[in-house]
Amino acid sequence: MRDELNKTTSSEAIFVKMVLLAWQAQNTRVNKLLESLSDEELLKETAPGRNTGIYLLGHLVATNDSLFKLLDLGERLHPELDIIFVESPDKSGMAMHSADELKRYWEEVNTKLTDYFNNMQPSEWFKRHTAVSKEDFIKEPYRNKLNVLITRTTHQSYHLGQLIYLKKNKEVVL
Amino acid sequence: MRDELNKTTSSEAIFVKMVLLAWQAQNTRVNKLLESLSDEELLKETAPGRNTGIYLLGHLVATNDSLFKLLDLGERLHPELDIIFVESPDKSGMAMHSADELKRYWEEVNTKLTDYFNNMQPSEWFKRHTAVSKEDFIKEPYRNKLNVLITRTTHQSYHLGQLIYLKKNKEVVL
Repeated sequence: MRDELNKTTSSEAIFVKMVLLAWQAQNTRVNKLLESLSDEELLKETAPGRNTGIYLLGHLVATNDSLFKLLDLGERLHPELDIIFVESPDKSGMAMHSADELKRYWEEVNTKLTDYFNNMQPSEWFKRHTAVSKEDFIKEPYRNKLNVLITRTTHQSYHLGQLIYLKKNKEVVL
Repeated sequence: MRDELNKTTSSEAIFVKMVLLAWQAQNTRVNKLLESLSDEELLKETAPGRNTGIYLLGHLVATNDSLFKLLDLGERLHPELDIIFVESPDKSGMAMHSADELKRYWEEVNTKLTDYFNNMQPSEWFKRHTAVSKEDFIKEPYRNKLNVLITRTTHQSYHLGQLIYLKKNKEVVL
């Protein structure tokens, strides 16, 4: 029985590691892109008439910041971002934060999330997230905390594909 | 012991379901986008000077097609795509397949992969993929078949973020 218990724990730990690696890989890619762009470049549209880099950065910070609540880790650091970067489209006329401010928030949110993640037991990730009811979770046990991180990782990758168009060198295929 | 065995099997089944759902969600999004675009639109650049829609479609078909080998499922259906859509950049001067042909391949590859996936035991996904050595896999057990599907899902989402720019309606935030 102990062997099987270890096997379960070890499968869970491996799976959590896979998802955390994927999330961190996306964050690292965004970090590298941000380091390579000037503030002026970040303010530009990713393609003619499309979202600006700074709007997408605010959108990604808000998305990661929302994880504190969704994963039941505590209060959000910057809930004020939602009205500008999630509930409103780009060029809404609302005052936006500066590039420096958003970059600082991005770093701060991800560092704090990483600290929490490093201290979470693998089994904790398989519990339900705060946006799914107990009843639904019984029927759909894959709607757990780890699944939230998977969907946020693909969401971030989607926008990274757009943000990369701010770079001057062309034809980037990842 | 049987309970713990069931628990392992059930945890593994849940992980696999989470990843398969994420992969299928990306495929569905690409399908919907393809349905909404004319062939003429698909031939356009996703942004000025960037990859065309048809190149990215070929690139995504080739990427999914490579899963047959990586996951040890059998022969690839279209290995001939690599030279044009993976090893060469867009506008290489090489003759490209038609939009209709690539859409047919996309459907064919994903249908066959889905058939295989539906018949795979959850535990099979936690075995090593064909591009990692036995020695490395002992040290890094997360380099398994399921992990390949996670990285391919984020890769697909990255390019979907670019393909969506082919649509005429603007400001798409996913």
